[in-house]
Amino acid sequence: MRGAVLHAPGDVRVENRDDPRIEQPTDAIIRLSATCVCGSDLWPYRGIQKLAGPTAMGHEYVGVVEEVGSEVTGVRPGQFVVGSFWASDNTCELCRAGYQSACVHRVPMGDLGSQAEYLRVPLADGTLVATPEVPSADLIPSYLAASDVLGTGWFAAVAAEAGPGRTVAVVGDGAVGLLAVLAARQLGAERIIAMSRHESRQKLAREFGATDIVTERGEEGVARIKDLTNGLGAHSVVEAVGTQESMMQAVHSTRAGGHVGFVGVTHDVSLPGMEMFFSLVHLHGGPAPVRRFLPHLMELIGDRTIDPGKVFDLELPLEQAAEGYRAMDERRAVKTLLRP
Amino acid sequence: MRGAVLHAPGDVRVENRDDPRIEQPTDAIIRLSATCVCGSDLWPYRGIQKLAGPTAMGHEYVGVVEEVGSEVTGVRPGQFVVGSFWASDNTCELCRAGYQSACVHRVPMGDLGSQAEYLRVPLADGTLVATPEVPSADLIPSYLAASDVLGTGWFAAVAAEAGPGRTVAVVGDGAVGLLAVLAARQLGAERIIAMSRHESRQKLAREFGATDIVTERGEEGVARIKDLTNGLGAHSVVEAVGTQESMMQAVHSTRAGGHVGFVGVTHDVSLPGMEMFFSLVHLHGGPAPVRRFLPHLMELIGDRTIDPGKVFDLELPLEQAAEGYRAMDERRAVKTLLRP
Repeated sequence: MRGAVLHAPGDVRVENRDDPRIEQPTDAIIRLSATCVCGSDLWPYRGIQKLAGPTAMGHEYVGVVEEVGSEVTGVRPGQFVVGSFWASDNTCELCRAGYQSACVHRVPMGDLGSQAEYLRVPLADGTLVATPEVPSADLIPSYLAASDVLGTGWFAAVAAEAGPGRTVAVVGDGAVGLLAVLAARQLGAERIIAMSRHESRQKLAREFGATDIVTERGEEGVARIKDLTNGLGAHSVVEAVGTQESMMQAVHSTRAGGHVGFVGVTHDVSLPGMEMFFSLVHLHGGPAPVRRFLPHLMELIGDRTIDPGKVFDLELPLEQAAEGYRAMDERRAVKTLLRP
Repeated sequence: MRGAVLHAPGDVRVENRDDPRIEQPTDAIIRLSATCVCGSDLWPYRGIQKLAGPTAMGHEYVGVVEEVGSEVTGVRPGQFVVGSFWASDNTCELCRAGYQSACVHRVPMGDLGSQAEYLRVPLADGTLVATPEVPSADLIPSYLAASDVLGTGWFAAVAAEAGPGRTVAVVGDGAVGLLAVLAARQLGAERIIAMSRHESRQKLAREFGATDIVTERGEEGVARIKDLTNGLGAHSVVEAVGTQESMMQAVHSTRAGGHVGFVGVTHDVSLPGMEMFFSLVHLHGGPAPVRRFLPHLMELIGDRTIDPGKVFDLELPLEQAAEGYRAMDERRAVKTLLRP
């Protein structure tokens, strides 16, 4: 089959890879309907995260089940399925508590490379959620968003306790930040402040439910949030970038007793103890347990309550994956969908 | 009046200070029934926190109201009252949300020096809680504990979401850690693991409700907690020390999705972003909003459900405050009560 492989920073090639096959009786093989490039794929693409060698890329996926292992009973060939970037058994104590991204048997899907024609999905019964029927083509991007960026933005909004009567601020206007705006809206937040200086992203944030836009960054951005919240800060702040500046912007934008939900991968971030202490904020985040939210999110997509697929502003054939990476790296695209 | 003043590291003197007087119409003056030395008083005593000059010490207090300002309606002369180490109006938006330690009008009681015969309490209506009648003498230590260490330990246990079905681990066997054990028990925790290597403190932890004792520290302590929790870590972990080692011990002892409540003042602590991210823990803490819990805690003390006063293992006349500090500094005493 064809699949995207990163050979060195900036060097993505679509080439022949071995067809995946059932290795464990709990595996499924799916034929991908669509896949995409993640903001986190840009870390190795930019050379910030080191490569051990040529690496099959991608961890987001939707597709049709081709084949299942002998122990798989939850999904069957022909079904359209969505899974998250962690394969999880969905039965261990941590899964049952809603932390499937910490499942004791978890497998990182990034090791398997979903930017390809076919994908092996371990722990298929726990990992995959099927739609009632194969969805119409226009819904595919939204289901694909559920695989990671929607689920991650949703987790961030839940971690930040977005909800009725709360003012939510979102730091980061990438796909995850924008979908955290959508999530906050669905969760009933009263006021949603998107922090963005890009006009097209501001527009999408408003479509997703943002009531206010703040263009300032860092401590100036914090001051604007304070202005909008009686000097107290927001109740709920989503951090969806992962830099020192954005984390501190999020913490400082939150009122005492408020909640920070952080999902930006915190490379080189260090949180000063005394500031965290005196901030009196709640902090929660990490690799999103997308699986917890998938059934609900897939329902909202299926009945067209939400349209998270709008974050894909570039669609390319898988063969042009390299251009998909470039466009995101240069911030010409929010998120690239690839069609195998 | 007589009061304790820190002149330099290690140099506490009880000397004549000006009698406090009503300065604002919202003030009250109380005659102290008892006061005490806090673990946090040891920071300047040890020279870790710098002094600007001779400093009146103390922020924990119980006493009888002597006089109130013209706008005070909630307490009256003759009443026995307890307050927290932050004076707070108890009416602002943050107070109403339960974060009186971040009250927009808050005043640090440490600036007023409660290790003395009399104390001015700002925002008396918001700050002070009166008992139905003047309590019997044997209850005074427990009410005094409510002023800080009990309220702080309780907040830590609440922040860590101690409750039914949860395993709670407590890092730190000072007064706050020991009272976090008591709080976890009252909150219905199933299993309470106290981390302590001091026999007398272990004994008190057991009296307060600890079901297990772990004597190992650092990563060995973490390994023991994992052993006791199916390899997953505790649901709830209280951090009541405030060092880098104790914070990381707390984070690493917590399962994914679990809660760390931290109340040790985090001098020189820095939380590594990637570890916080992949830990998937909830983190909440800071200066405890003791006022939130005071009415409930005072009820539990009044009806003798709890006996937090047991943490005072040294009682001295105020005039011997210097020995009270020394005993705590040398860890000969858990906590010193001073009688003016």
